[in-house]
Amino acid sequence: MKMLLERLGIKLPIIQAPMAGVSTPEMAAAVSNAGALGSIGIGAVDANGAREMICATKALTEGSINVNVFCHKHATANAGRESAWLSYLAPYFAEFDAKPPTKLQEIYKSFLEDDDKLEVLLELRPKVVSFHFGLPSKDKISRLKNAGILLLSSATTLDEGLIAQDAGVDAIVAQGYEAGGHRGMFDPSTSDHCLGQTELTRVFVSKLDIPVIAAGGIMDGAGIIAALNLGAEAAQLGTAFIGCPESSADKYFKAALQSSAANHTVMTNAISGRPARCLTNMFTAIGKRIDPSIVPDYPIAYDAGKALNAAAQGAGEGGYGAHWAGQGAPRARFIPAADLIAQLQIEMDAISA
Amino acid sequence: MKMLLERLGIKLPIIQAPMAGVSTPEMAAAVSNAGALGSIGIGAVDANGAREMICATKALTEGSINVNVFCHKHATANAGRESAWLSYLAPYFAEFDAKPPTKLQEIYKSFLEDDDKLEVLLELRPKVVSFHFGLPSKDKISRLKNAGILLLSSATTLDEGLIAQDAGVDAIVAQGYEAGGHRGMFDPSTSDHCLGQTELTRVFVSKLDIPVIAAGGIMDGAGIIAALNLGAEAAQLGTAFIGCPESSADKYFKAALQSSAANHTVMTNAISGRPARCLTNMFTAIGKRIDPSIVPDYPIAYDAGKALNAAAQGAGEGGYGAHWAGQGAPRARFIPAADLIAQLQIEMDAISA
Repeated sequence: MKMLLERLGIKLPIIQAPMAGVSTPEMAAAVSNAGALGSIGIGAVDANGAREMICATKALTEGSINVNVFCHKHATANAGRESAWLSYLAPYFAEFDAKPPTKLQEIYKSFLEDDDKLEVLLELRPKVVSFHFGLPSKDKISRLKNAGILLLSSATTLDEGLIAQDAGVDAIVAQGYEAGGHRGMFDPSTSDHCLGQTELTRVFVSKLDIPVIAAGGIMDGAGIIAALNLGAEAAQLGTAFIGCPESSADKYFKAALQSSAANHTVMTNAISGRPARCLTNMFTAIGKRIDPSIVPDYPIAYDAGKALNAAAQGAGEGGYGAHWAGQGAPRARFIPAADLIAQLQIEMDAISA
Repeated sequence: MKMLLERLGIKLPIIQAPMAGVSTPEMAAAVSNAGALGSIGIGAVDANGAREMICATKALTEGSINVNVFCHKHATANAGRESAWLSYLAPYFAEFDAKPPTKLQEIYKSFLEDDDKLEVLLELRPKVVSFHFGLPSKDKISRLKNAGILLLSSATTLDEGLIAQDAGVDAIVAQGYEAGGHRGMFDPSTSDHCLGQTELTRVFVSKLDIPVIAAGGIMDGAGIIAALNLGAEAAQLGTAFIGCPESSADKYFKAALQSSAANHTVMTNAISGRPARCLTNMFTAIGKRIDPSIVPDYPIAYDAGKALNAAAQGAGEGGYGAHWAGQGAPRARFIPAADLIAQLQIEMDAISA
């Protein structure tokens, strides 16, 4: 069996995390051209948008790329809960002379039900497709595999890792509790085990037969080498890339990442309806004040969250954004993605030497 | 400046965590005799008990030992909250034909106010004294330092680390969120940053001038090497030693550690009044059902917690114990402490080679 890096077609044991809304074709291509695995996330766009993003990335690199899809279960709509949530948020909208939407939509179609996106992937054949929030059907998985695409899945517990392995994924992303953005829990209604990256990596390495990619709190060469010593074959870094010029994080997000807000990230479901690690801001403060069960299901709640952020930004207030970031946020660097990869390599070499 | 291991007088970069109620003179001595740093915790005994434990340990080893003290602020008694808590727990006591205590005591005297314990330490001069939950007064610190005792403090945030450094401690224990037992937060009323071991270690290594000891989720040689790669000068392991025959963990605790309960640890304040990571059991289930703010202050609540455990154990039910353990619990080994140290060394050598 070939080692993971060889199968992925990359030289460095580094994967830039997909980060829908932050990663771009330019970022992914810069990373892939530098010898690591660049990723884009197509969970927040439709099949046409996915096609555009994949083609744009392929136009910029001949290297391997990873395309991430969201595999969440269909949202459970609940008109009463949704209207109560909009009423709860109304005073926040009012601060910006705005009104909440009258009705909330399930803004993202899950890959579980998106056959058009599957066809785009089968046609454009990125080297790697990765799953978040769960796994698609056996049929979708076998069609992707038959097309020669390597499959990754994030997992937050041993049970999820075993399910992904049994489903045939080629490697598992051990998403530690430190990681930024949405927890990949297959079922967010269950109690979060909160496993740290080192623990999850060690458990997967000892209990799974497929390669492990460590994720969560890795920001530098020392973190990558540590993950490799834990038995991971690669490390996935997301927050490390938010500050790159290729990132589509807006000016408010980048400013927050450079501020003291980065010193304290929190897990909140208030913005999107699913737990996600975020820089402390005005929206996470709402999350602290409420019972999480009053928030509508993902991604219905995200429709409200994005509307509130738009209203606030319209008034020049950037504190209601989905500033997804991991615990390593204070150590983010604001340099081009290719320079970051080069720096990481220098740091790794300094330790290995 | 000598390196930390040399100053501690140990050969291996391994510290056995103090774990009051689990560690014993026999455990600490076995660890120290094997070339690592053995620890005992004297937070749960008075000055006389501390004297006995330190003398018993010194009788078994000429190696360095670490004596840990609890530096919590004086508990805030609140008769109404305490009586409401006892009423809440009464049905649980009733299941075992028992009644809750009529009044709760502050069962542990903080080292902040315990001058007798200070005198014992100054007289017996263990190589190392470590602080948990905060720091003693400047006067206590300077008297310990003047006696030639090396000082460690646990810390869970950069702010706590800076306070400890400024107070003159010789090295900092980066207590990651994965770690078992009580969170070392100096002020448990503040919001927990939940920083994982890798993140906290990296932050301390880059921002502090004193050596860093990584703690949380480290169970094997790979974990130790990873921590050293992150820049720590040593690793502290607690959960790894609970299953040793030298441990005073009772039969219920050891059975739970070998059961599926070990697969899911949770942070709870229901047992002692402060957040602590515990194997999932009947007491942590109580913790899940309540608003944490109804629990009396630490260690007043612990008086009730220990009484409920005693009542339950009297009826053969071991599920109400303070089964403090870290996320690495499923990887605990049940071998003598000296054998465990030897194994860790073999595992470290296998990676370094």
